[in-house]
Amino acid sequence: MTEPFSFRLIATDGAARLGEISTPRGTIATPAFMPVGTQATVKGVTFDEVRRSGADIVLANTYHLMLRPGAERIAALGGLHTFMNWPRPILTDSGGFQVMSLSELRKITDRGVTFRSHIDGNMVELTPERAIEIQSLLGADLSMQLDECIKLPSPRAEIERAMRLSLAWAERCKRAFETASPGRALFGIVQGGDNTALRAESAKALTSIGFHGYAIGGLAVGEPQHVMLKVVEDTAPLLPQGQPRYLMGVGMPEDLIEAAARGIDMFDCVLPTRNGRHGAVFTRFGMLNLANARHRDDPRPLDEASQHEATHTYSRAYLSHLVRVNELLGQMLLSAINLAYYQTLMAGVREAIAQRRFADFCAATREGWERGDIAPL
Amino acid sequence: MTEPFSFRLIATDGAARLGEISTPRGTIATPAFMPVGTQATVKGVTFDEVRRSGADIVLANTYHLMLRPGAERIAALGGLHTFMNWPRPILTDSGGFQVMSLSELRKITDRGVTFRSHIDGNMVELTPERAIEIQSLLGADLSMQLDECIKLPSPRAEIERAMRLSLAWAERCKRAFETASPGRALFGIVQGGDNTALRAESAKALTSIGFHGYAIGGLAVGEPQHVMLKVVEDTAPLLPQGQPRYLMGVGMPEDLIEAAARGIDMFDCVLPTRNGRHGAVFTRFGMLNLANARHRDDPRPLDEASQHEATHTYSRAYLSHLVRVNELLGQMLLSAINLAYYQTLMAGVREAIAQRRFADFCAATREGWERGDIAPL
Repeated sequence: MTEPFSFRLIATDGAARLGEISTPRGTIATPAFMPVGTQATVKGVTFDEVRRSGADIVLANTYHLMLRPGAERIAALGGLHTFMNWPRPILTDSGGFQVMSLSELRKITDRGVTFRSHIDGNMVELTPERAIEIQSLLGADLSMQLDECIKLPSPRAEIERAMRLSLAWAERCKRAFETASPGRALFGIVQGGDNTALRAESAKALTSIGFHGYAIGGLAVGEPQHVMLKVVEDTAPLLPQGQPRYLMGVGMPEDLIEAAARGIDMFDCVLPTRNGRHGAVFTRFGMLNLANARHRDDPRPLDEASQHEATHTYSRAYLSHLVRVNELLGQMLLSAINLAYYQTLMAGVREAIAQRRFADFCAATREGWERGDIAPL
Repeated sequence: MTEPFSFRLIATDGAARLGEISTPRGTIATPAFMPVGTQATVKGVTFDEVRRSGADIVLANTYHLMLRPGAERIAALGGLHTFMNWPRPILTDSGGFQVMSLSELRKITDRGVTFRSHIDGNMVELTPERAIEIQSLLGADLSMQLDECIKLPSPRAEIERAMRLSLAWAERCKRAFETASPGRALFGIVQGGDNTALRAESAKALTSIGFHGYAIGGLAVGEPQHVMLKVVEDTAPLLPQGQPRYLMGVGMPEDLIEAAARGIDMFDCVLPTRNGRHGAVFTRFGMLNLANARHRDDPRPLDEASQHEATHTYSRAYLSHLVRVNELLGQMLLSAINLAYYQTLMAGVREAIAQRRFADFCAATREGWERGDIAPL
């Protein structure tokens, strides 16, 4: 019999892993990219389109939703799946990351974090127990522990303090989660900045507390890519083989394949939609800026070999026009194209691992990006 | 054999007319509502969705397109149909209305209008001949003469001057249009403000010049609804029975049924999409503001009896949330719902005229609007 929540490792190729997460709301093929539905919507894209792109799971932000429309309101409305009309798995973050990056007057104590809402100026408290309660009210399938995420570089003492606080909060989250309904999962978050020893200590302590999955947090916060990948490379092997590993907030397409090569199973990032809203589109030729003058008179489609319909249907000239005049349709189409690109990339990653040719896949993908766009007319 | 461009009057009910415009790019069931694709896009909605809503034709704005991306550029890219991926009929306005409302430093002479572009500050000239040339470069199926549209109220002398100038420009547009390819149509525009005698003079003179269709312009520019309807009521009977009549820039749903009752065949307006972007939704209960607090906790769909999928799929609470946090998806969904409402209304108008129960249809429709929204929970 399958567990209500379970992870199955299907194949490996080097450190890269092909897997499948089972939840009562559906399965998630890994390595997986989770589109970000910050305020209960993936910006500029319907959930039908999100699903068509190939996403098995989306992420929603506890910080935003607890402030507006409120976790209790969403619970009264039947939970987040019903609210936003996405019946498949949802992962919620704990709110901690956005408390650190968006709120003012935040005060961190052992008890939790108190902050001034960026919406209405009210003071709000987020404790490990409340973070779990909110995620439970939202009805998240995958919940995250509350942690303290600090920017890099930071002094070692500061990194260590935040890592230990995050561990203490991890224990409290685990306890608070004990009454959660079957099939719901809780992930611990490895902290420790760019310090290998602190990361190892965090991973070991979290593993002994025991979670359904493990995230690597506190990256993509300003450090160079090689630092991030080094932390991933050193940390992933310390995590249990039989459970999913999630690299939070990452990243660019090249980050995804590099991190998947180092044993990461799950990703989330706002880049596909954020860049789409600003006229940048991800393609097998690399990232293009459609506002660039060279596209203005180009009648060719963006990429006839790509999967998303809009890359065939519209000319570069039209997409460029929409971006230049800042039309909603441009934001909508590029966000959808980018989400589809990310999901196509992940499908390629999974297929390559299954066929044990992941290194070749990465090399061919990188070669395409480096070759750059098709020649101008 | 059918003419390349023709209008067929199918049935009447009082002054209301059921008809069909045939063009080489498709037929247009009238009374018709034309969604506005200002900058070669109906804001926030794909053209697939525009078509699904029931639109046979869209309007595009010459003023915006001549400035960005430019009429010559669109022509080089294969014309507006190809550019924006809408193969069906397109009506373009002449640019005159937006020159008056959006540009600075405009100077009107008999020759035409010179203005400073609101985009790059360049001085641009728009003459009757250039207005026809631009619409031809765009590839419009239905073109409009250049006219001078003034706000109401205005002094009679000013209204008369603008009306006579518009007539002179009508003649020049007709001449400039003589080389247009078969199947393309040119509409004259009746001016004359709120003065019945001037309107009659304009209508008579335009009819003797001879156009494929006739518009009533210079309304929806600040006058009360009863003034607008009086002008329509007095003017429509002066126009040829066998050609389509277009009331420019109108309007609210009640304006559409009132004007259709007075013999108007075509309408355009930005309200469905503009109001949608600002959280207002048109329903058979009247217009609702979804930002209103009473919707925040309401799990019911907007209207289960409505045709657009989004009025069933999403709760009022979710739509209200999207509006309150100003998410793109809210703008997208409400724009699409509003366009569908307008098209459903027009389909109802056409069906009622065919069955000679148009007065009953109008009464029942008005009664729904006046009854207001379904009771709160």
